[in-house]
Amino acid sequence: MKISEWGEDRLIRRITRRIRTDPSVVRGVGDDCAVLTGRLSAGFGAGAGRFLLFASDMLVEGVHFRRAARPEQIGWKALAVNVSDVAAMGGLPRYAVVSIGLPRETRGSFVEGVYRGLRRCAARFGVNLVGGDTVRSPKIVVDVAILGEVERGRVVYRKGARPGDVLLVTGRLGGAVRSGRHLTFTPRVREARALAGRGRVHAMMDLSDGLWVDLGRLCRESRVGAVLELGRIPRRPGCSLKQALTDGEDFELLLAVPAREAARLIRWARGRLACGLTRIGRVVKRNSGGPVTCVDAKGRQVVWREGGFRHF
Amino acid sequence: MKISEWGEDRLIRRITRRIRTDPSVVRGVGDDCAVLTGRLSAGFGAGAGRFLLFASDMLVEGVHFRRAARPEQIGWKALAVNVSDVAAMGGLPRYAVVSIGLPRETRGSFVEGVYRGLRRCAARFGVNLVGGDTVRSPKIVVDVAILGEVERGRVVYRKGARPGDVLLVTGRLGGAVRSGRHLTFTPRVREARALAGRGRVHAMMDLSDGLWVDLGRLCRESRVGAVLELGRIPRRPGCSLKQALTDGEDFELLLAVPAREAARLIRWARGRLACGLTRIGRVVKRNSGGPVTCVDAKGRQVVWREGGFRHF
Repeated sequence: MKISEWGEDRLIRRITRRIRTDPSVVRGVGDDCAVLTGRLSAGFGAGAGRFLLFASDMLVEGVHFRRAARPEQIGWKALAVNVSDVAAMGGLPRYAVVSIGLPRETRGSFVEGVYRGLRRCAARFGVNLVGGDTVRSPKIVVDVAILGEVERGRVVYRKGARPGDVLLVTGRLGGAVRSGRHLTFTPRVREARALAGRGRVHAMMDLSDGLWVDLGRLCRESRVGAVLELGRIPRRPGCSLKQALTDGEDFELLLAVPAREAARLIRWARGRLACGLTRIGRVVKRNSGGPVTCVDAKGRQVVWREGGFRHF
Repeated sequence: MKISEWGEDRLIRRITRRIRTDPSVVRGVGDDCAVLTGRLSAGFGAGAGRFLLFASDMLVEGVHFRRAARPEQIGWKALAVNVSDVAAMGGLPRYAVVSIGLPRETRGSFVEGVYRGLRRCAARFGVNLVGGDTVRSPKIVVDVAILGEVERGRVVYRKGARPGDVLLVTGRLGGAVRSGRHLTFTPRVREARALAGRGRVHAMMDLSDGLWVDLGRLCRESRVGAVLELGRIPRRPGCSLKQALTDGEDFELLLAVPAREAARLIRWARGRLACGLTRIGRVVKRNSGGPVTCVDAKGRQVVWREGGFRHF
């Protein structure tokens, strides 16, 4: 069986199901970051009432960027996707190590450009670049691992959504790769910190593979279903509904919050979060079908059929 | 200018010279691991008198292993090289994240084998595998980032060697790639902990690129020179002196210790460290030539000329 037949989620389930961790691992595989506490050994984090966050994201030439991309943008994106993972837990990024694989014929100025982008992103979000590895590789590969911190009371997982919650999303979705925005996006650190610190956020994640796929993941981790109100989904100008749902690389935040908090947070966000905060659906009990059901503006159920949403 | 003309050390100097870090970074780029303290923010480590260690190492198919290698061995090596980096600081490995790039046609059983190797190495050295990333890639790439801990009094850098110190090495050198040992080696965690806890170790590193290159790095970081006693270098059976000096991937420990400690440590190691501990030279003041000078069994200076060491 080839991994292309399994798909990413099944592959991850298969390779991680036998992994055992000690009690210092509050959350291991399956969220935007691992959540660690010093209970067992060094006491880090514990005393100060904080958790450590730990994650990594790999970019490969031809898959996540083209070699023609500006090297500064490749560097920015390589760190920004990791910063976004820390933001999605409600945390602050602190340290990063960078492993970079390069063909022998790579120009020095290209590599310096990648590091300029890494440094710009690091300076913007308070990240210390502290090390890594430099190796030969037939294609350019940049893998960043990030360490962040989060107050115990502010950490938000994918798994906390409950039936009755309202689903919110920051910004507008779709067209990130086509427009080049996937190389220059601003991770929602400030927004995530403000939202996780202001109201009770039951679940949060960043949108990297498109709302459709990622909402399914949030539902599975939370053991719930979701009703997506298609008419409310905030689209980037020129994007179809399908693009907004499946394009990916938006790096916006998806949140599940108690219904009474939702209106309060949306009111608060007005004029304060430039990116906006939009209600896009609600959390329901898990049903026997797929995790996500779609409804049109009138609340009638619709399904995806041959390139568009249709009524039954 | 292509990076192949710069070489690894110059490339790293160029891309990292503009990096600025905050005071919580005790040691950034330039050692086996970054050394972090919680002074500025979360207080992790600080209270318990420990530092955090943070590093990453990337393996690329065709460069660090062949696709024909047993997948368990690829997984073992990917984590073991990182465990070795933590050992080289005197620390204990604790957590790792794994980013893996895979061609679409990769067999599921291959990936499961890689993770079996990762889990075996993790269980052996007390490492928690807590997350990572899985992406598409034309060649197999495995990048592991590791978090470790070390007591403040036990951390050892590359930079502490002083003139008059004696150079020691664990194990025997050479032939690691040819013999396949680079895929199955045992990181010297126990040995490094014992040595760093038992005597004053001024400087330590693990040997990944061969004694000749790595001793040069230790000298540059310490701003000293070294005299290598060629007759004393412990070689693997069937290895020439050149192979022992330049083959690389030995993952043995290189130490600089005060002269009066050296004899004591070697005596202590006898019968206790199965790998052995050998005196291979001494640290001297930096001179104007290259950092490392070689002498033969009679103490006469020799130089490398066309495939072998010769007297002038």
